[in-house]
Amino acid sequence: RTDAARLWDSLMEMAKIGPGSAGGNNRQTLTDADSAGRHLFADWCKAAGMTMGVDTMGNMFATRAGTDPGALPVYMGSHLDTQPTGGKFDGVLGVLGALEVVRRMNDLGLKTKHPIVVTNWTNEEGARFAPAMLASGVFAGIHTEDYAKTRKDLDGKVFGEELARIGWVGDEVTGARKMHAMLELHIEQGPILEAEGKTIGVVTHGQGLWWLEITLTGKDAHTGSTPMNMRVNAGLGMARVTERVHQIAMSHQPNAVGAVGQVKVFPNSRNVIPGKVVFTVDIRSPEQGKLDAMRAEVERAAHAVAVELGLGCEIEAVGHFDPVTFDPGLVKIVRQSAEKLGYSQMDIISGAGHDACWINRVAPTVMVMCPCVDGLSHNEAEEISPEWAAAGADVLLHAVLEVAGV
Amino acid sequence: RTDAARLWDSLMEMAKIGPGSAGGNNRQTLTDADSAGRHLFADWCKAAGMTMGVDTMGNMFATRAGTDPGALPVYMGSHLDTQPTGGKFDGVLGVLGALEVVRRMNDLGLKTKHPIVVTNWTNEEGARFAPAMLASGVFAGIHTEDYAKTRKDLDGKVFGEELARIGWVGDEVTGARKMHAMLELHIEQGPILEAEGKTIGVVTHGQGLWWLEITLTGKDAHTGSTPMNMRVNAGLGMARVTERVHQIAMSHQPNAVGAVGQVKVFPNSRNVIPGKVVFTVDIRSPEQGKLDAMRAEVERAAHAVAVELGLGCEIEAVGHFDPVTFDPGLVKIVRQSAEKLGYSQMDIISGAGHDACWINRVAPTVMVMCPCVDGLSHNEAEEISPEWAAAGADVLLHAVLEVAGV
Ligand SMILES: NC(=O)NCCC(=O)O
Ligand SMILES: NC(=O)NCCC(=O)O
Repeated sequence: RTDAARLWDSLMEMAKIGPGSAGGNNRQTLTDADSAGRHLFADWCKAAGMTMGVDTMGNMFATRAGTDPGALPVYMGSHLDTQPTGGKFDGVLGVLGALEVVRRMNDLGLKTKHPIVVTNWTNEEGARFAPAMLASGVFAGIHTEDYAKTRKDLDGKVFGEELARIGWVGDEVTGARKMHAMLELHIEQGPILEAEGKTIGVVTHGQGLWWLEITLTGKDAHTGSTPMNMRVNAGLGMARVTERVHQIAMSHQPNAVGAVGQVKVFPNSRNVIPGKVVFTVDIRSPEQGKLDAMRAEVERAAHAVAVELGLGCEIEAVGHFDPVTFDPGLVKIVRQSAEKLGYSQMDIISGAGHDACWINRVAPTVMVMCPCVDGLSHNEAEEISPEWAAAGADVLLHAVLEVAGV
Repeated sequence: RTDAARLWDSLMEMAKIGPGSAGGNNRQTLTDADSAGRHLFADWCKAAGMTMGVDTMGNMFATRAGTDPGALPVYMGSHLDTQPTGGKFDGVLGVLGALEVVRRMNDLGLKTKHPIVVTNWTNEEGARFAPAMLASGVFAGIHTEDYAKTRKDLDGKVFGEELARIGWVGDEVTGARKMHAMLELHIEQGPILEAEGKTIGVVTHGQGLWWLEITLTGKDAHTGSTPMNMRVNAGLGMARVTERVHQIAMSHQPNAVGAVGQVKVFPNSRNVIPGKVVFTVDIRSPEQGKLDAMRAEVERAAHAVAVELGLGCEIEAVGHFDPVTFDPGLVKIVRQSAEKLGYSQMDIISGAGHDACWINRVAPTVMVMCPCVDGLSHNEAEEISPEWAAAGADVLLHAVLEVAGV
């Protein structure tokens, strides 16, 4: 078993970097806080006897040598970046849980045939730069590096420039590494494990997602002196589309979610009818058919609202992945590891996207989940227990030993 | 008649300060651009032989002496601040039109019994700091100076500190001045004069207004992994209230308008269900009964939506004025001045709020309006013709000579 106290200590140490205002974290990707978090992680890896590689997307790879020089490494890890008002565990548990696995192997003097690599993927959250899982997506060949490096945040800052600014552009070609397998530990971010009273989720599938950025264009005009029938109110259009997104998700129950998360209103003045709005729709389903149907329905609804109100309407897909099926062999190993350790467990579908979803395209991949309190995530109040964290790391340890060969 | 070319030149000179990105202006109150605009105006007043006084709210008063030392001054003026994406004429025409009246009186060597004062009121727009007409409101005793000086903008900057920062805190006690009368020239900001083919609007009344700032509080949570039935989506609540504000205004036609203009979403991330929204409703009517009814209906709607979705709901009134009736004697003088000059004219109700609406509480007040193209205002494309501007200034000249006594 892993050292629950050491893992928790490390989680709490990392949480000191980029603190939020309500007990969580604001360590968004490519900020100074992100850089500080990376340095702390790199120091810990060095202390654990690993050697660090960094690729051109800033992905970090800390290697523990194996006994067979020809064997491909087994990867574990997740991400250290957070939402603007994020929790202390989303992503971080996957990185520091993997580090704890290595520390425990060091304690016990365990050697594996395959090398072990602990990874921190850049910009998993997609909060600052859409889409999410950007750098693992480049690694897996989903996005070009050029596409990724030209993404812009709300202030117009450019991904590539910000990565250089914080000093984390590495010299490895992104995606050049070959993997024997990849395992990602993550908090569930949903309520199911806690509700079912299970300590471990064996992740068999992941939901698919579309992020649509919708721009509605009307005419800004004086709210007081412009008669109702002369208005071209983009804000009203956004309200109607927001309601429709909700209805569309509700009409595909179960196994469908959707909401509008990010909103920009122009000129955003109390006495000006909004002349332009830009907002993002996030819709998801584990079923390909539902996902495709919802996307079509949201697009139709937005165009219909635009026609209704005389608005211009443009829709850009800024994030997408299809539903994922994880590697059945690895899923079995995770299930057996949890069983062996005596943890209660169930199969689960990931509601969130994860780096593992992209890596699954280029290597056998699986995920392990542990519960979080009230299913709450992407919220500073996100909480887990030290026992849940350790249980997840224990399962990761046993699974990785199985996959990497002792 | 006034000098149309000179007036137009001054309007274009002022428009160079705080240019917008689309041909209009961003000269928001208490910015460096506002300060620069004030300096230009002060220089012009000095060149026209006037003496400048500034009060503790930054209101500017340029005086042209009268022949009767005991007579109270006649005031003319409006505001030089603009919306974030505002036009070149909203407010500015009223200040520089008044200046042109004085310049013309200088050209002709005309002396008046009452002194003439040209005024620039601070923060008419209310775009940066709610409410609108803030400093004329303090002058008229509607707001305390303490209330005004503690208003905050979206970045949390404080009115009093920003006024000091730009160097325009004067030494006159705000509201200490007594007025014989006040006349404000302004563009219509609506489509009526142009549609009716009239050059001059004689403003008999002004609409009343409520600005309500509504805060809905839900729970930020992961958009992907939070089931639909566990969500407390504040963004959906905002969408529903926005739709209801529109419906409420439509149900009180004619003589009612309403929209949501300013929106803040927290945490405003693509994959986070909004946990909090703060947005402002602007509702207006020239009829007191409708205005009161609309306010009650909007508040009821917001609370009902909150109950529907399990949201917290707080409503704060951040701006208000009742419908206004301008001074009948002055209205008659404006009407006669337009007649004498041969301009087509009609009576009109102001759709917007104006400094004149507050000053009307403490002195006989009236407004003169000229058309604007397509009724468009609070938009960088706001446009008027030099002839319309001059016609407005001509009427102002004749009315002021009548009121101030030649
Ligand atoms: N795990 C996680 O929150 N990833 C961000 C991408 C997503 O929204 O699913
Ligand atoms: N004239 C003008 O636009 N004033 C701002 C206050 C209002 O919104 O009516």
